[in-house]
Formats: sequence, structure tokens, C-alpha cells
Amino acid sequence: MSDRKEFRDLAEPEAAHDAIASLDLTPEAETVPLSDARGRVLAERVDAELDVPGFDRASMDGYAVRARDTFGADEADPVVLDLTGAVHAGERPGLAVESGSCVEISTGAVMPEGADAVVMVERTDERDEGERIAFRTSVAPGDHVMLAGADIAAGGRALGPGTLLTPREIGLLSALGVDEVPVRGRPTVGIVSTGDELVRPGDELDSEAGQIYDVNSTTVAAGVEEAGGEAVLYPHAGDDYDEMERVLREAAAECDLVLSSGSTSASAVDVIYRVVEERGELLLHGVAVKPGKPMLVGRLADSAYVGLPGYPVSALTIFRTFVAPAIREAAGLPEPRTATVAGRMAVRERYAEGRLRYMPVGLLEGDSDGDGDEAPLVYPVDKGSGATTSLVEADGVVAVHPDTEYLAEGERVEVQLFSPDVRPPTLLGVGEDDPVLNRLLDRLDRPRYLAVGSREGLRRLRGGVPDVAVVAGERERDVDGVDLGGWRREWGLVVPAGNPESVSGLADLVDRDLRFVNRDTNSGLRTDLSNALAALAEERGSTRHDLVDAIDGFDLAAKAYESPARKVLAGKADAGLGLRATAESLGLSFVPLGDQPVTVLANPARTDKSSVAALERELEHVAEHIDGLTGTTDR
Amino acid sequence: MSDRKEFRDLAEPEAAHDAIASLDLTPEAETVPLSDARGRVLAERVDAELDVPGFDRASMDGYAVRARDTFGADEADPVVLDLTGAVHAGERPGLAVESGSCVEISTGAVMPEGADAVVMVERTDERDEGERIAFRTSVAPGDHVMLAGADIAAGGRALGPGTLLTPREIGLLSALGVDEVPVRGRPTVGIVSTGDELVRPGDELDSEAGQIYDVNSTTVAAGVEEAGGEAVLYPHAGDDYDEMERVLREAAAECDLVLSSGSTSASAVDVIYRVVEERGELLLHGVAVKPGKPMLVGRLADSAYVGLPGYPVSALTIFRTFVAPAIREAAGLPEPRTATVAGRMAVRERYAEGRLRYMPVGLLEGDSDGDGDEAPLVYPVDKGSGATTSLVEADGVVAVHPDTEYLAEGERVEVQLFSPDVRPPTLLGVGEDDPVLNRLLDRLDRPRYLAVGSREGLRRLRGGVPDVAVVAGERERDVDGVDLGGWRREWGLVVPAGNPESVSGLADLVDRDLRFVNRDTNSGLRTDLSNALAALAEERGSTRHDLVDAIDGFDLAAKAYESPARKVLAGKADAGLGLRATAESLGLSFVPLGDQPVTVLANPARTDKSSVAALERELEHVAEHIDGLTGTTDR
Repeated sequence: MSDRKEFRDLAEPEAAHDAIASLDLTPEAETVPLSDARGRVLAERVDAELDVPGFDRASMDGYAVRARDTFGADEADPVVLDLTGAVHAGERPGLAVESGSCVEISTGAVMPEGADAVVMVERTDERDEGERIAFRTSVAPGDHVMLAGADIAAGGRALGPGTLLTPREIGLLSALGVDEVPVRGRPTVGIVSTGDELVRPGDELDSEAGQIYDVNSTTVAAGVEEAGGEAVLYPHAGDDYDEMERVLREAAAECDLVLSSGSTSASAVDVIYRVVEERGELLLHGVAVKPGKPMLVGRLADSAYVGLPGYPVSALTIFRTFVAPAIREAAGLPEPRTATVAGRMAVRERYAEGRLRYMPVGLLEGDSDGDGDEAPLVYPVDKGSGATTSLVEADGVVAVHPDTEYLAEGERVEVQLFSPDVRPPTLLGVGEDDPVLNRLLDRLDRPRYLAVGSREGLRRLRGGVPDVAVVAGERERDVDGVDLGGWRREWGLVVPAGNPESVSGLADLVDRDLRFVNRDTNSGLRTDLSNALAALAEERGSTRHDLVDAIDGFDLAAKAYESPARKVLAGKADAGLGLRATAESLGLSFVPLGDQPVTVLANPARTDKSSVAALERELEHVAEHIDGLTGTTDR
Repeated sequence: MSDRKEFRDLAEPEAAHDAIASLDLTPEAETVPLSDARGRVLAERVDAELDVPGFDRASMDGYAVRARDTFGADEADPVVLDLTGAVHAGERPGLAVESGSCVEISTGAVMPEGADAVVMVERTDERDEGERIAFRTSVAPGDHVMLAGADIAAGGRALGPGTLLTPREIGLLSALGVDEVPVRGRPTVGIVSTGDELVRPGDELDSEAGQIYDVNSTTVAAGVEEAGGEAVLYPHAGDDYDEMERVLREAAAECDLVLSSGSTSASAVDVIYRVVEERGELLLHGVAVKPGKPMLVGRLADSAYVGLPGYPVSALTIFRTFVAPAIREAAGLPEPRTATVAGRMAVRERYAEGRLRYMPVGLLEGDSDGDGDEAPLVYPVDKGSGATTSLVEADGVVAVHPDTEYLAEGERVEVQLFSPDVRPPTLLGVGEDDPVLNRLLDRLDRPRYLAVGSREGLRRLRGGVPDVAVVAGERERDVDGVDLGGWRREWGLVVPAGNPESVSGLADLVDRDLRFVNRDTNSGLRTDLSNALAALAEERGSTRHDLVDAIDGFDLAAKAYESPARKVLAGKADAGLGLRATAESLGLSFVPLGDQPVTVLANPARTDKSSVAALERELEHVAEHIDGLTGTTDR
């Protein structure tokens, strides 16, 4: 299939960093208005071109005097001077202060000629209806006067090159009258999407033709912007050589760096590979890290080129590890202080791969009310190839070195976050999917919920990582968790609007030729359906197995609670296992088969955790969340 | 002067927080394109509207089969099936897989009807010139197939309200085909500048009329944007009541929050106060924190209103403490994790003010090579009222409680940074101002240099806070610091271009009627000038004092090294104390009087600090920096 040149060995990670560093991404400096300068980096030193203040100014409200005239004045024996005028902030002083006279002055006003000090108004009295002023204190030259240049003097070094401009630096530049700032350029990064199957979000998707939305281009574009670059998305065209060459050359001409990202299909990657080989220079193919094997580094015309892996988490991992630092370096930006976080392994994780692995992990906020250790828990996330949800389940990666045999439970690890803005969820829930639950979760601060089904949820709760599991269906009293409360929900068959086939119950599925869509065995709905079938079999003197065999589609199991109903809606099935709430929200009809409890079980070690307590409080008001959805609060 | 209603007591800080919280700044939610969504906050839950993937897809390159057909196959006894076609990613499968046949399939392609598993290409061989395929392994239904919805199932909860959108969430939204995102609005904050003396950066400044550039408006605007708001600057007009009322009403009509900021002049503040009292509602005037006394909180039409203090550091302190949290809350953003930093006091600081004080402090990065304590050093910065440089010297504030008598040296304190992007400088230098030094500093990473003069620099080095002091002039061997190296510089009199007065030396200043501008007594230039005058006095059998008295302007001391030269350039003086380098850079003439060493002295406790070592290395190449400036490397 491939005509790629085989690089004999995968490159070491250091070599990959070096290869990217050897490609200069640094754009030219530019000048931006001060109002756009926040977050940018000074390209050159800024010296003060003027004195601040630009004049000797009063730093108090009072009277400008010749200090010498006040010598000897005190409370008992004030000195009296003629008041000859006033000067306010923003005014040109109209007159000088001669010996024996004074001028009223406000804070910030220009010192009149002749005056060398200010007496605070509080130490003076008016005399002769304000024509003269009595001074109850003496002052020295310079008292309450800020000399020109005392704050910033012309010619002084104000800000050095490489300074990140935060509000206070903006303030200093303002004081200097600077309204245009020389800043480091932001490297332009072109993102070329590959793969005929990829469609831009917002465009129509033809699933039957195998199309999927392009995840990597937008994810990486956001990562580029976060690292201080400017992302340009190049429209996806065909995967043939000529078209790909045209797009890559255009991107290389316009950008400092070109990233290709998108498809995992071997043919699309092959085409890119050939274009870079023939129209540029390939420096490196494959890095000895997991997941760096598909990584490419090279040059295309005057631009740098990096090819990212196709799977979203892999693409983001390689981007974060190798590409983002190069973009920041080119933009002059430091690594964000929140780019990593220290955590502790929630579980033991075996490892023996013989090469460096960036292991995708999820984080879970610790709790000072809990075991006293506030470091977040770290657990491996691997939903397997291509999974997009693991993008959201995974908060970052842990670099596991080749000679590591295992990470122990409780072991300290450093997590390299996928974004400096990533924060660990406060609550990790697992289990059944449910519309009332979704509303409860909306009321909590930063929860993460994995809808893995009741059975898998219970299994994970026993594993000790999640804070809570949500379980649906009739069950024996559970010893795996602490019951925090729950609600009941009505389940049954979702059928087309108006129930055209007049389905009235489970018997119709068995006896008639109806296309059915089931839920997977982790679902609490599936459990109760099986129980109902067993009851029907007993009633008929048959076996559950025989009844199951007679149902067309019993093994066609959908993973999410709305999926069977959506198949019905799409006309692909006559009945689907689901909830009354789902049927109603999709405008379908519903044949009730029973109702079942939904129970929230807490990890026994976490009942004191504040987020668990918050969920427990919400459960007390669950009726409000059921409002508008089908269900009752009776249990 | 003022007709303000006196609020009997200053409000407690909590009351100020409550007053601002009672003003709802929250704007309406809005919808933004996905490409602009990074850093925004989801306004509502996003549920999956489609399955991801939208079809059963192959997760390996290989052959799509009916798993049942492969039962029993192994290396020794392969099963052979007819190859009836191929399907690639992004293609609609043209044919079904019947029993006894198979179809070539690529990763990501749609599973053809009838097929329920994929056999990896590595476990197969072609037979009969590719017309048939031999399978050396059996597979189970579902092997190497990712079912529709297996990653994300339609109807599932994808992201909750309040989620901060980082690249990975952008990726998830892309996968769901979402190209427009409902996000929390950014509160609009109008900034009204007050004070007739304020000029916008970029406009012409008339220093003689007491004008200064407006620092607070741009600083606070940058702070607003950093906190997640949208800043609108309202053009400054006059300070009279009608004009101010018009601007405030316009801002209140257009914004969620109006901030006034700018002048320290009592009359401008009075006008604002009256407008708010008469056209809105004043909730609070003055907070019992230093510097919160001038703070105002109120309502103007439907908008919230906060009046900030006039001095830049005070304005930023009050903004950071009371206003920024309210803006973040309205925008749905969490407090940045880097908003505070733990440090240790570099000096003992006495305190007994009886009210909460936000003490402006500078930070200095610790060094693991040094005393082993990596927490940054914290030192008080107080250049006094109105200083703009302390904006850049101060990295944040430490809240000192009313009952604190003192902060001990080494005491742990929490510094509330002025921006989450503020980083402590790696090096703190103090002392003489010098053009060669400025070039050296440009080579270092995040240095901070305070040009306080040689004498004050030495004093501070003895105080133990700075890493280095830079000292100019002939001195006795110094025991206060470790000599890291230095250079020499030529000093003398800077005179107008062409030296129209034919100044030839110091004697001309004494004997002729020339207007002179001196440097302050902290400067190493001043020291050497005094020495030269003493020598001249001895030569003449006179006293230094008599010579000094004869010089017009000897006491007119400028703080920065270019200031005297700039006075000469402006025609305001006939000669200024300065460097040859300065004269040349400003196009003026120079009368040499001597040359002097410039020495960099390290704090004896910090010679191992990496930034000090970096400066020492740069000093070895000081000749490069002198290149183009006047001076020699001989010492």
C-alpha cells in the first residue's frame, strides 16, 4: 500500500525537539496599538522618551510658596503671605511666585515659577477675606513637590525586550505616551486537513458515506491560538497528490509552520508524505514515543512542517509536547505556569512498553475535607483508538519512561495538561444515562460524568476511582456504595408517533415481525427488559432464550439512552427500548412496560467530599429537576 | 471645596464586596462561531445531537467479513473467502457482504451490510491473484469494529453549562458538528476618564500646561479584558457637571458596569460624585482599606458604577480586589490559578495602621541554587503617591490585617498579583543608570533594574534585597558586594551641538554665566564632578563651596542620566552633566572631564544564583555591548 521510505529507527524524543527547533518559526516583529498589546511580548527595549511627570507638580492641595519665606513659621507665630492667584491641574500657571507671595495650587498642578514648595491647606488659614494666607508651618524646598522626571526620567530604560505586557506594563507605556508598541510577531500556523471522509463542523454530514466531522483541525487550531500563534485553516479538498500539493504549497507560502492533521487513513498520510518528500525535505519520520510513531517533521519551501497523528488524543498529545513549545518560543512567550499539575495515581497502572509513553489521564480534584491530601487523583483514560470523548475525559498526559514497570497507587506523577486552562473536575460520576441526572449535573460546579451504564458504573465504583455511580433498575440492596437518594423513571417501548403498528406490549415484539433496537447489557433498562422477558416466558411456559431469539434486533444494542428512539425516529426500527421522557422529547409514542428506580451511590471513602455533599443536597430537590420530564419522585 | 455627603464610617471590605455583588453585571448569553469559542464559557448544556461515529466503522485496515464465516480458521487451516470489492474511508459501501465473501476495508470506512467484523490485513493472504483471501485467524462479531455511537451517543450529555472551552472541548464540539456555541456574554465595562489634565497616549502633551498622559484608563481597560470583560473607553471631555453627566449617562446606557478612573483632583471627583448621587444611587463611599478611601460604589440607570482611586497603583489594587472578581463572576470565569503566589518577606516591615492595607510589593525569584528556598522574595514598594513606575516595580499586593504589628523577615505571605501573567523577575538590580548597562540587561531573562543611583544602590544592596548593585565613580575597594566586573565610561559636560559657547572645561561653569544642569547626589557622575571641583578649588587656593556657589544651577539636579542633556537639547541650559554616549546619541557636543569605572557588585548571598551568574557571563563580553557607544573595556 505504501511507498514510504522507511526510516530505520524511530527518532528519540530529544531529536524530535531538536528537529523542530532547527526550523525557525519566528515571524517578523510588528507594531500594534497599545489597546491591542495586552498579552503580547515586547520586541525591543522601550526607553522613556519624556520625563514623567513632565513638570514639577504639586502633590498636595495647598499653596505654592518660596520655602525660604516660610522659615520660622509655626502654630504660635505664623508667616503671612499675599495670595496672588490660583493654579489647578491641567492649567498653565498664569503667574510667578515672588518673595512674599503665594499661589493656591491643587494636587497635580504645575508649580508656578519661583515657587519651590507646597504647604498643605490644612496647615494654613485665610486672612483678610482670602487676600492673604497665614502659614502655621515652615517647609523645606521640594516639600510636597514631585520634580519633573522623578517618576520616570527621559532616557531611562522603561521595559526590556521580551517583557510580557500585562495591564501594569500597559499603564507604564501609557504614562510614556506610547500608543503603538513594537511586539514579537505571532507565528502563523497553517492547518491542512487530510482525509476524504472529513467534513467541517456546520456542514451536512453523510454518515452512510462514512463521513465524520473533522475534530483535529479545530482542536489544533485552538491549541495554536492558546500557544500564541495565529491559526489558519486550509479548506479540505481531495486526497489526491495534485490537490494536496497545491494546498500544502499555498499554506507553506503563507505560514511560518504548516501542520497536517486529520485522517488516520494510510492513503491520505501517504500522499502528504510524498508531497513533503518531493517538494520539501523530510527531517524525521516517527518518534520513539507512544503515540509519536506517525509523526513527521520537515520543511516545505520556507516553512516548517509537522505532521500530527490522526487520532484526536494522539494529535493533541504530540502537539502539546513538541509543537506548542516551538510556537511559544517563536512568539517569545514563556510556558504557562499552569501547564502541568502534580497529582497522585488513583490506581496501580502496569507498564512495560520499552518506549516513552504519553499516557492519557483524567484528573479528579482532591478534597481537603476528605483524606487530607489535596493533590488531584490521576487515572488512566484509554477509550481506544479514535475516541473523541477521551478528549474530554483526558485532562492531559503523564510521561511514563521506558524503564517504568508500573505506577503504584498513590504514586506522585506530573500531569502535562492539554491546556493551561484545564481544571480537574470536582466530581467524577459514572453509570446510567438519564435525563433527570443531566439536569442535576447542570446544577453542580465542574462535574464529569461518564455514561458507561449501570453495570460498568458499579464495577468502576468498586475500583475506587469515581466519587459516585448512578444505577438504574431493581437491584438487591447494594453494599458497594452509600445510597445518596434517587428517583423513579418509566421505561418501555418507544414507537413511531401515533403507534401505527398498534404495539401494546412485549408480546408484540416476540410474536410479530417488528424491527427492535435494544440497549447494551450495561444499561439498567436492559436488565429490567430481561426480567420482563423472563416473566413473560414463565407465563407462556417457554424459556427466555426462545423469546429472545424471536425478537428481531434483540442483539442490536445501542449504547446511549436515546439511540433506540432515534432509530425509530429515523424509520429504521419499529420499536426501541427507552424512557417515556425520551419518547416525549422526540415527539414519538410510548408503550409503558414498567418503572424502575435510579439510585445514586457514593464511594464510601468520599461521602464527606464537598462535591458529593453538593450532589446529595441537589437530590433532595430532585422533584424540581423531574418537572417537565416524565417520572415521579416516589421510590 | 467639597459638597459631598459624608458617609459616617468607611465601609468594611466585606460590605464593599457585597455592594458590588448586589449590582448584577451579568450580560445576556450570546452565540459565537466555534472558531471564536476558545476561552469562553458555555451558557447551557450541549447534548449530542448525533452518534459519533455515525456508522459502524472499521478500526483497522483489513477485510470486512461475517465473523461466523471465519470460525475455525487458524494458521494451519485458513478459511478462504471470495473478495467481492473494497470500501475506503469516506466512501459509501457499494455492496453487501454475503456469506462466503469478504470486502477489503480501510480504517475509518463504513462496514458494509452483512459484515460484522474486520480481520486485520496482517492475518490474511491473497489467493488466486487477489480474487480470494485466506484468513489465518477467526474473529468474533464486533472485532475491530467501532459501533455507531460507541464514542458519543446521540442524546447524551456532552458538556455542561459553565464549562470553560479549551482546545479539547472545541474538539468535542467539532465531533458533534457544532459550529455555533451558546456562551456566557462578556460584561461590557465603560471606563470614563476624569481630570482636565489627562491626555490620551498618542496625543500631543503640553507639559507646561500641566498635562499628563492618562494611565488609569488604559491600565484598567487591560485589566477588564483580562478578567473576561469588554472594555469601552469613553472619550475624555471637560470636568464640568453637564459634560460629565452626559458621558456617564451614555456609558451607563451602553454598558453593564461603568468605572470612573483617572484624576486625583478633588474637583473632578466631586463632579462624578454629584452626578452619581443625583442621577443614580450611591451605595457606598469609602472602604476601610488602604487605599480604598476614595472608592465609590453605586448604580447609574441600569448599570453598576464603581469609582476607583486616582493613583495608578491604588486604582489597580482596588480594581483587582473588588472589581475584577465581579467581572469574572458575570462572565462565568473562575479565578485564575496564578492570581496569587506564595512568597517570603525579604525584609522586616513594620505596620500599625489600624485598618486593612493592601501593601504594594515587588517579587524577586528565588533560586534553587541559592539558599534552597525557592519561594520568591517579597519586598514593599512604595514610591509614594502617583508614581507610575511603582506600577512596574510592584507585582501585586499583600493584604496586611489591621492587627498586624509587623511582618518579619522571612515570614510567609500571599501576594495577590496584579495580573495572573505577572512573573517575578529573575534578577533585581539597583544603582547607576548607564547605556551599556541597558544593553547588558537586554540580554538577560526578565531582569528588573531600578535606576536609583550609585549611592542609593549601595545602600539597598547593604539592605540585602537586591541581587546586584551597579556603582559608578572612583571608590575605595568595596566590601559591600562581590565585584562581578564592569567597564569605564567617559563623563563631562554635554553642550549644544557645535559648542557655541566654546565651553572647554569646568572652569567655564565657575567663571562664566552659563546655565548648568547637574545630577542628583545619588549619581556616580555627581560624585566625580564634586571631586573634580575640589581639585579645581585646590588648584585655585579656593574652597569647593565657593566654586559651587558660583555655578548657576549646581543644585538643579536631574534624576536620570539623559535629563541634563535633554535640557541642553531643549535650549533650557548651556551645559549638563553627562556621558559622551548621551551627547552623541542626542546629536550634541561633549566636553570631556574624565572617565570613571562602572562596577557591578553582587549581593554576597546570591553569587551562586543563576541569574547573577548569567549577568557575570554577559560582563565577560561587555565589549560587544559597548560597541557603538563611547567607552572602553579597560578598567
